[in-house]
Parts: sequence; C-alpha cells; structure tokens
Amino acid sequence: MSSTTGTLFRVSTFGESHCKAVGAIVDGCPSQIALCEKDIQAQLDRRRPGQSDLSTPRQELDSVTIMSGVENGKTLGTPICLMVMNKDQRPGDYSEMIEIPRPSHADFTYMAKYGIKASSGGGRSSARETIGRVAAGAIAEKFLKETYGVEIVAFVSSVGGIDASGVDYQTINRQIVDETIIRCPDSTVASKMIDLVREVRDDLDSVGGIVTCVIRGVPAGWGDPVCAKMEARLAQAMLSLPATKGFEIGSGFAGTALRGSEHNDPFIWNNGRLQTLTNNSGGVQGGITNGETITFRIAFKPPATIGKSQKTVDFNGRQTVLEAKGRHDPCVVPRAVPIVECMTAIILADCALMQKAYQR
Amino acid sequence: MSSTTGTLFRVSTFGESHCKAVGAIVDGCPSQIALCEKDIQAQLDRRRPGQSDLSTPRQELDSVTIMSGVENGKTLGTPICLMVMNKDQRPGDYSEMIEIPRPSHADFTYMAKYGIKASSGGGRSSARETIGRVAAGAIAEKFLKETYGVEIVAFVSSVGGIDASGVDYQTINRQIVDETIIRCPDSTVASKMIDLVREVRDDLDSVGGIVTCVIRGVPAGWGDPVCAKMEARLAQAMLSLPATKGFEIGSGFAGTALRGSEHNDPFIWNNGRLQTLTNNSGGVQGGITNGETITFRIAFKPPATIGKSQKTVDFNGRQTVLEAKGRHDPCVVPRAVPIVECMTAIILADCALMQKAYQR
Amino acid sequence: MSSTTGTLFRVSTFGESHCKAVGAIVDGCPSQIALCEKDIQAQLDRRRPGQSDLSTPRQELDSVTIMSGVENGKTLGTPICLMVMNKDQRPGDYSEMIEIPRPSHADFTYMAKYGIKASSGGGRSSARETIGRVAAGAIAEKFLKETYGVEIVAFVSSVGGIDASGVDYQTINRQIVDETIIRCPDSTVASKMIDLVREVRDDLDSVGGIVTCVIRGVPAGWGDPVCAKMEARLAQAMLSLPATKGFEIGSGFAGTALRGSEHNDPFIWNNGRLQTLTNNSGGVQGGITNGETITFRIAFKPPATIGKSQKTVDFNGRQTVLEAKGRHDPCVVPRAVPIVECMTAIILADCALMQKAYQR
Amino acid sequence: MSSTTGTLFRVSTFGESHCKAVGAIVDGCPSQIALCEKDIQAQLDRRRPGQSDLSTPRQELDSVTIMSGVENGKTLGTPICLMVMNKDQRPGDYSEMIEIPRPSHADFTYMAKYGIKASSGGGRSSARETIGRVAAGAIAEKFLKETYGVEIVAFVSSVGGIDASGVDYQTINRQIVDETIIRCPDSTVASKMIDLVREVRDDLDSVGGIVTCVIRGVPAGWGDPVCAKMEARLAQAMLSLPATKGFEIGSGFAGTALRGSEHNDPFIWNNGRLQTLTNNSGGVQGGITNGETITFRIAFKPPATIGKSQKTVDFNGRQTVLEAKGRHDPCVVPRAVPIVECMTAIILADCALMQKAYQR
Repeated sequence: MSSTTGTLFRVSTFGESHCKAVGAIVDGCPSQIALCEKDIQAQLDRRRPGQSDLSTPRQELDSVTIMSGVENGKTLGTPICLMVMNKDQRPGDYSEMIEIPRPSHADFTYMAKYGIKASSGGGRSSARETIGRVAAGAIAEKFLKETYGVEIVAFVSSVGGIDASGVDYQTINRQIVDETIIRCPDSTVASKMIDLVREVRDDLDSVGGIVTCVIRGVPAGWGDPVCAKMEARLAQAMLSLPATKGFEIGSGFAGTALRGSEHNDPFIWNNGRLQTLTNNSGGVQGGITNGETITFRIAFKPPATIGKSQKTVDFNGRQTVLEAKGRHDPCVVPRAVPIVECMTAIILADCALMQKAYQR
Repeated sequence: MSSTTGTLFRVSTFGESHCKAVGAIVDGCPSQIALCEKDIQAQLDRRRPGQSDLSTPRQELDSVTIMSGVENGKTLGTPICLMVMNKDQRPGDYSEMIEIPRPSHADFTYMAKYGIKASSGGGRSSARETIGRVAAGAIAEKFLKETYGVEIVAFVSSVGGIDASGVDYQTINRQIVDETIIRCPDSTVASKMIDLVREVRDDLDSVGGIVTCVIRGVPAGWGDPVCAKMEARLAQAMLSLPATKGFEIGSGFAGTALRGSEHNDPFIWNNGRLQTLTNNSGGVQGGITNGETITFRIAFKPPATIGKSQKTVDFNGRQTVLEAKGRHDPCVVPRAVPIVECMTAIILADCALMQKAYQR
Repeated sequence: MSSTTGTLFRVSTFGESHCKAVGAIVDGCPSQIALCEKDIQAQLDRRRPGQSDLSTPRQELDSVTIMSGVENGKTLGTPICLMVMNKDQRPGDYSEMIEIPRPSHADFTYMAKYGIKASSGGGRSSARETIGRVAAGAIAEKFLKETYGVEIVAFVSSVGGIDASGVDYQTINRQIVDETIIRCPDSTVASKMIDLVREVRDDLDSVGGIVTCVIRGVPAGWGDPVCAKMEARLAQAMLSLPATKGFEIGSGFAGTALRGSEHNDPFIWNNGRLQTLTNNSGGVQGGITNGETITFRIAFKPPATIGKSQKTVDFNGRQTVLEAKGRHDPCVVPRAVPIVECMTAIILADCALMQKAYQR
Repeated sequence: MSSTTGTLFRVSTFGESHCKAVGAIVDGCPSQIALCEKDIQAQLDRRRPGQSDLSTPRQELDSVTIMSGVENGKTLGTPICLMVMNKDQRPGDYSEMIEIPRPSHADFTYMAKYGIKASSGGGRSSARETIGRVAAGAIAEKFLKETYGVEIVAFVSSVGGIDASGVDYQTINRQIVDETIIRCPDSTVASKMIDLVREVRDDLDSVGGIVTCVIRGVPAGWGDPVCAKMEARLAQAMLSLPATKGFEIGSGFAGTALRGSEHNDPFIWNNGRLQTLTNNSGGVQGGITNGETITFRIAFKPPATIGKSQKTVDFNGRQTVLEAKGRHDPCVVPRAVPIVECMTAIILADCALMQKAYQR
C-alpha cells in the first residue's frame, strides 16, 4: 500500500538508504515498448548526488539494471523490476542519530510508528527511496512521449525566497533547465540562487525552494471526478516526495484573492477545437484535463539534516546539542527536478491508461 | 475508483446534482459504535445551502437516512449506506449551459471525457456530491473522537485576500467558528470578509478564499512512508474537493524561504514524552504524525458560475455572451468548512485503522 | 473492501436482510450505454423468492430504482446507485436465533468477528445481499452483450447427487433453462430433481446442488497472469456467493486423473483463427481467455437453515434443540442461476475494460 | 494489479522464466519480526526442481537474498524485496515453441494478450514465477506461527486418480509429508503414486493430481463477508497458481449430494468455547473462520508440456507435430505442496492484519 502508486500503471518501490539495493517494480506497463537501461539512466543521472558542488558529496553511480519484464529490447507487458545497488554505505556517519532524533527529520516518527529504526540514515524517508520512482517514471515518460507526445518539464522557480520570472511555459525544455546547476531557466536569478545555496552550505545550514512543473500535450479528458481528480492525484504524488510542504495548481493560493470574473478562463475557438484564453485553471477543470498546458508548483522545505549545531533532546529526553555528520544536500530543489518530472509521468501514464479503458 | 477513498475506512459516494439522490457507502466502519441520523445531520446542516445571505438560495433540507449497517443504534461493522434525496431540482435553470460550456467549470471537460453531459448542473462536479462525503465524514469524526479523542476544527482564514490573524490553534472550536456567518474566528476581519462577499454577490461576481484546518489529539505514528504519507493523503483529499487549487501543511510555501536552522522543530521533553518546541512541520514528519497539532491550509478559487456576463464561445465555437442563471454561492469557503473537516476525518479514520493493524 | 469487487468495473454492495434497503453502486460503467430499470429487473425477477413452490415463501417484489448515474436513459459514466427497498421484514421469525447460533450458518462467526449481530436473519450473509450484485451484474451483462456479443448462461447441473447430462454448451440459452422451475435443461432429470426438492422440503430439510456456467463470445486475451487470472477471479467471485463450497473450470477435479496427452487441447485452424479441438481448459489457459467457450461449475451446499430439529448448543454452551422458523429455500440452486450469471458478468466487464486499457 | 495480492500484507511478484531474476516485494510485513534468509530458504528448497527423479532435471539452487526491509535480523516494517537470480537459462530448448504454441500452455494466450511473447519458456506462466510467492509466503508463515500459532500443512492426496486415505488432519505435519518424494502421507498409496509418475515420465507424458491443505490454529473471526470471504480469497489464491483447475473447501463438491440435516455442523461446548462436532464447513462459515481446522483441496491438471508427440498447428495454422524439448515435471503436485502452503500463508497473514485493524 504505502509504497505503491497507480491503478493500471502501478509502481511499487523498495529499499532503504543503507540496505543492499533500492528500486521498483512497474506492473502494468503496456507491451511492445522499446526499452533499455539507457532510457532510464538519463533521469537517474540528473537525480544522483555529486552532480555539482550544490549537492551531497555522497558518491553513487546509481546504475540501473532491468531484472525482468523486458526481452530483446521490448517490454513484455509483465512486471518490470528495476534495481540500483547501494554502494557507498557509511552507517558510521549516522551513529550519533541512534541516540538523538534529528529535528524535523523522520527518526522520531519512524520509531513511534515501527518501534524500530534503520540503524543509519532515514530509512524509507531517505532521498534514495526516490531512485525507484525516478527509474519507473522514466519508463512512464517514454510511454507518454511515444504514445501521446506528452512533454514534462520541471524547473526551480524559487530558492530561499528568490523567485525566477519570465519563464515561457510553451518553450521551456530540459536542455534549457540544465544550463545552470541550480536548474533555474532565469539565468540572472539562477546566479543569485547558486550564491545563496553556497552561502548556506558553507554556513552548515540548508535552504528551501519551489519547483514548477509544466506539462504539454495532454489531451482533454484525462483524470476523473471526485477522489481521483487529476489535481488530487498530482497533489498526493508531489506531497509523497521527501521534504515537500505544499502543492498548488494553476492560480493556486494567489487565485484566492481574485474574483470569478478575473479568474475564469473564457473559451476560444482555436486550431479547430475549444481552447481557453487564459489558464488560471492550470490545465484542469473539475479534475479532468482540458487540453491546455498543465502547470503546478511544489514547496520544498529546507533539508532537516544540517551540520550547524542544534539544541534538542535525545530519545530519552536529555538535553543535548546535535551537529549532523552525514552527507546531505544544502538545498534539494535542483535534484528534485527530475524526481518531480518522473513522479508526474507515473500519474499521467496511469490516467492515460484509465481514459483508454473507458473511452468509446 | 474515482468515487472511492480509503483502504480500511472506505467511502464511496454517488449522485449528481439533479438525479434522485446523493449519498455514500461507508465500508469498514468498526462495529458497536453508537450511531443515529442525528449524529450525521449536524455537519450536513452546516454544509447545506441557504444558511445565510452569503450562500445560494437553493433550498435543500438535506435530511440523511441510514439505509443499512446500523441496527438498534449501533453499527454492525457492515456497509453503512447514507442517502439524501434531491428535492429542489430546477433543470430549467441550466438549459442555456447545454449549448455553452461555463468558463472554468467542468461542463467542457466532462463532455470531453464522457461524450455526454448531465443535462443540468455540473454532474459529479456539483457541490452536492460533497453531501455523501460530509455524511460519511461525520461518522469518521464520531469514531475518532470517541476512540482517540481527536478534534478537527476548520475555519475561514482568508477571503479575497483579506487574511485572519491571531487564531489560537489550541483553543479554537466549532462554536467559535460558527459565531460569524463567514466562519472566520477573527471577528474584526470576519466583518470585512462578509462585506466583501456581499459586494461581489451584488456585483453578480464571486471571490476565492482559504480554509485552515487544525487537528488536535492525533497520536504519533499515524500515516505511512512514501505514497501514503499523511500529508500526501490529506493533499489528495483536499484537492478532490470542488474549487480547490492548493494545499500546504505546516510552514507550506512560506517555509521555502527559510533556512533549516530556522525551520527545524527542536525536540523538547514535555508531559513525559518527546514534543517539539515549534511546529513548522505541521504535525507530520516523513509522512507520519509526531503527536503535535496537525495544521494545513486549502486554497479555494472564486466559484466559476457567475451571473456577470462573460464573453466566451459555445460548444460549436461560436462567439457568445454567458450570464449564468443558476443559483450559486458567491464564495464557497463558509460552507467548505464542514466539508474540509469531514474529508479530513475520513482520511484520519483510515490511518487510525491502518496503524492499529500493524502496531505490535 | 469486503463488499467491493472489480478494478475498473467496480461494484460495491450494501444492505442486510432486515434494514431499509439493499443495493449497490456501480462505479466505472462506461458512459452512453442505454439503460433503464427494466433492463435490470429481468434478472432480479429470476432471483427473487416465491417464483415457485421450490423456494422460500418470503414475498418481496424486489423492484429496483436507479438513484444516480443515468439520465435520459443513458449512463453518464458516473456511479450508478441501485436500490431495492426491503419490505417483508419479520424480525420476529428470528428471535430464537438471538440465543442459538444456527449450525453451519454465519450467526456464530459474525458474532466472533463483530461482537454484535444483526438482530434477525443472517445480516450480510443473507441471500438478500446478492440483490445488489444481481442488479449490478445485469448492467455488466448489457455492456458485454452490446459491446462484445458475450452470452452468459448458467443452469442447474446437479441436485442432491442427481446429475444432468447431454446439455449442449453451444446452444443452451436462458429460455431453455427457464422451462423447468429447477432450471435444469435436461427435462427428464429436471423432474427427478424437482421431486427430490419437494421431498426434502416436506421433510423440513434441505439439499445441495451444482450450477454450471457457460460463456460464449469472449475473445482471446481477457484475464491476466498470476494473481488476476481469469479462473482465479471467477473462483473468488463464485466462492463469494452464499452457500458455495467449490469451483472448477474446464476439466476440473476430474481432469486430475488424466494424462497430459489426453488432457491437452490441440490447436486447429478454423474460421481464420487458432481454435482448440477439445476444451478441457474451459476456455482459459495461463489465466487468459483463448477464445473458446468458458465453462465452470460451482458447488452449493444444502442450506443451513432447516425446520428439522437439530441438537446443538446456544451461545452460552447450553445443550438445546433448534427448529428454525424463518422462511428459507430447501435448495438454492434454481435461484442461484441468475446470481451466478450476474456475478460472472461483473468479473468479465472488469476484464474487458482492463484489456481495453492495455491493448495496443 | 495482476501480480499483487493482499491489502495489508501485500505481495507483488516479478520475473519470467529466463530473465535475470525472479522475486517479490512484501509490503506491509509488521516490524520487529526476526527474519533472515535461512527462514525463507527452507520452503524454497522444498519447491525447487531436481529434488527427486520425479521432477524436472533443471538445476537451480534458488538462493534467496533479502535486498531491503530487514536490518540486524529484524524486519523494519518497510518493503522487503526478495530476489532469486535465474541461472540455468537455456532459451535454445524452447526455440521450436516460437513457431508452435504448446497445446494447453499459455504460449497462445500470451501472444493474443500482449502481441509479444517471451522468447523462451512460458514467461509469467512459468512455474518459476511462484518462487517470489514462496519466498514471500515463508515470511507470512513465520509471522502467523509466532503471533498466532497457526500451522499450515499441505500434502498430495491424489495422483492420476489414485487417492490417499486415512490422513489425520490434527497430527499431520511437514516432516511426515516429506517422508515420501511424492509428499503423500499415506505410504502405501504413495508408492503407487510414485510408480505411476515414473511410468508417465518414461512415457514422455504427464499426470495430474490433488493437493489437500490443512490449517490449524486460526482463531474465529478472520475473513470478511461478501467479496473477501476467506474461502473466496483462498480460491482466488489457489486458482492463481499454475496448472490449477479447481478448489473446494470442507465438503466441497461431495457435499452437494447431502441434505442439510447431514451436512450441518452442530455446535458443542468444548475447551470453554463453542466448537463444532463435525467440520463439513471446512473451518469457515459465511466467509469467516469459526476456529475449527480449515481444510481445502486443489485440483492440478497434468502439465501441458510433454515430450510425447502431439498433432497440432503452428501460429500460422499449419499442421505440425510437437515434441517438447524443454525440461519439465511429469507431475507438479509434490513441488506444489510448499507453494500451496506459502500462498495460503499470504492470504491468512492479510486476514490476520485485517481483523486486528477492526477488532475492538
């Protein structure tokens, strides 16, 4: 349950930070799709640590192996097991945390829930869990692109309160996003963001940020009423990522200050079909896509694990000071970009198959 | 699928705006809980239209009947079917919309998805669909309160950009919330909000707002890692409500501007257990509750159906002007308050049973 | 969970023997299917008590009302709520059973599970629960027939050890089945069966039997590998019906005595496609349909509620003698025929939509 | 979907006959259970080929590795990934079957469903898929035994029409079962069965059989009404195993010839609780366990792959003769014994957690 998402395109992940491997099973990928490890590796490489001086120096190549479900370069329609071995395990780094739960990390809540704690790192709350989702999502992306022409592009739109502007949702692509190590396409703002992240890193601190995701090419009709609304499923998917605190689609929280006459997206006739003049809806109305670009934003908090000393108490309630020794990112948003894209793809692939099932 | 939520406390709703009835089945409510229609009616009364001049004059008593699953005032452990008859049906009000999809409403997307459209009103996107969820949620609330002492209180914290302040999350209750017809506990701000809603109503327009939800008494350990994180499930639940565009928990989007050293919630020893000094986490860490008060906010857009004239096109792409005749709320947030509470209760009841299943 | 079946064509039932109503929600029926109550009533009429002197004299018209999901005679694609009011409630008949659990009935196990018991009748184990499934299944049948030409015909093939023979699976239809009140198409054997049922009825006893189900017109490719094999899903569906004790497909238990060379169904080329010369497989190989006629058999035990006196103990372990007063069938198989057909249709409709989702 | 079973104790398998690995993820195993590979290997060893001259000479050690979810010999409560590498791959053996679908095997139906076929062996219909289920089930068994004292014992009760008799369901255990290579505890009959299997093997043919499963120690109250009846879930689980054609619980098909007065199990007072004098119910009434021994039987057809020549047609409909070259069992029931036990354990573990969730 808790590690599975999707009904028809179904992804189940496994793996802790320091066990033998992390990965996922994709059950429900259609057959006859060309697929090899290289198709998956690209997004894993964008996700892995050590890409720049902005992220944790933990070294992991994160090479994926397809264990099942693919033969002669084609999907069989059967479960695809994806596996990435854990290599750079240093449980010693975390020995202190056996005694002291890190503030705002999951050490305490995992202990409350399970009565036992992975001896090192954050167990399933570790960012390494997302490897399985990225690998699975890369397959979903390939399916969506080849079958429907869907394009998913995420980028960093804010770091520590510094906001990007002027990003064109119709032309933005991954190449543009990857031009800066912070993955913000507004190059002037990107420099300021990078400076800020280096500053907080050197200060042994961390900082939060916002990722914006743009999806082009989804036809009208995907998503469902009520509980499985497209925006509801995307919200769940995004809030299931580590360190997330908020989700908004289209006009989001800012739209609450508007009047209906300003906020409504009037219909126009364009390219032989109904389109909307504006897109405050963010591509979704009543839970169902309307054929416009889907846009949403996800809030990431500053990482909880910081080297800076924190006054706190240990599991027994004794006052102490914690200076985390583990390797960690001062800001997660650059590496969150491919994770957001892949998680989005998983939801969309599921919605695509759902719509196919019912469409007359 | 699309109308069902929950794994162990499972709610499935049915009903359009203008069919014979709306309601829900609750499958998985524990047995031996005292339950009668009166327990459920209270929240339905807070949800129904016509409570004040701020809402639609559509008159519906929305009286609930328990059709199954309860005998001699006790739940049997079997499915509880809840039904509310639709009475005040005026399909004629909507005749114009057969031709013209309302901007930012679901008329167009339902047609794109199903190739057919309820002849009147918004079908399943109608606010009447939430009746089933409120009725089911009222049962969940009773279970949570009696078994765990959980208290859920939602209130209006913003309308059209006017923000409440100074609300004490430890003492706020429904009586205080209901003191104003806008359901904002900051009485000075409430008056301004009410004035604004009357103004937009008289202008045949609508306005958005924000609902804040506070949950006290949830023990540490509810919620799951990864896909079924507490915040992920709450986000899905909230974004599944009509007219919602955003969700944030704890520090939310504002927290992205902070550094980890400011944002982290240090542990303290209090009342014989670990607590946190601050609550930027909003009561959840790594998807699992930490025993602190859970707090989140939901953005509601201005209602799409407005009397004000809108330039748009009809289903055939012909330029037209729409002035909606149906009865509708100028601002949904006062009536959204019990809906948010009940939807929250459904998720929490499910999490409570899940935790009970695994706890040693 | 426990009252829901299906993933895409999803049926959730509700209702006890003596509450206000029984029924079901069908979530996931495709839109634009012509549907009215008459389409559903036919199978309910074949299921209802009092059709002949072989069944319980409990009088219920079992008239179904469509509460939602259908407008102007067409399905909307949204949840269809089906309701049948309970009318002929006589809790008094069951007063004795409050103290004495009926042998081989669910009185004891419901009490063990829930710590509470419906005051009368068997709660959810009552045959009245199947009304919701029959109503839902009638919709599934219509969808399957119109979209794929699928024909489902069940009949009584054995009663109390008396076996029918010579039934032609390619031509059997419901009209032929309904020619005798026992619903056995072998008219000579049918008479013997009817005599036997009358004999056990007059003896205040009951007797078991076997229902055979034949499905024509399912294309190759429905069903899934492993957990959702067609035969596995049918087995679950059939064993979820009251009073069932066994399921076998194709050669079933008799096939275990054969050698592979006798049992294998060789392929032949016929009508421009691969067919099989024999059909020991019962239309399914490896969990997936092969385009041949699907055939399976279900064992129904003799009804547990009998008027004949039984030595047993009450809930407190005191020795007693029970002579059940309630109205009950001496043999369930004639009325089980439409139930088996409808439950089969629900599973097949789900498999049809599943296959549509993935088919390239 | 199709490769996942269970709601709370959830098992998802992956792997074809000739890909890199087969295995499973167990999501929902409670935390703090002592677990190591050795606990799992025992049942895998009873399942693997080459144990005696009665099974395929394909050599596979089938050594399991725990990839995640266990640390320091204890379960963490997180997904447990179990993996067994495929070693003895000989795709060449199967080259002929690329052209000719084996009669009564899944070659044809997989092609009909997926439009593609694993180049060798039966893909997911291969018996190797059950490795993941056996490994997962071994964990379920450990949980059930330690927490509830549940004992699950399966044995061969019939081969090719030769039936065992005189097996005592209260004392039978795995040691007794394993005394003969055919796994039939009736030693006289076992010899005849072994002779028969050798005879059919030497004749390049195969033969079917029946496995009986006995479960002691399950308390009253497990299982659910309606769709998730214990017998319905067991039936689905058993019919999801390769080569199965039937399932019966308690009196099964034979019970259909009885009258209610013979078939009913009267209650007695014993050991301070209600028990039943007889057990035609097979330990389940109304879908819920009654505390008696659970007993059911599963029909396995003769394996479809035989060396003996078969007249059939190839995929293009051309008449041909097939003599299968692959390594295969002449009779699957001895190796099916641990598979049945483990699959049973998975269902029971799920039911145990379900009951714990709701029990007051």
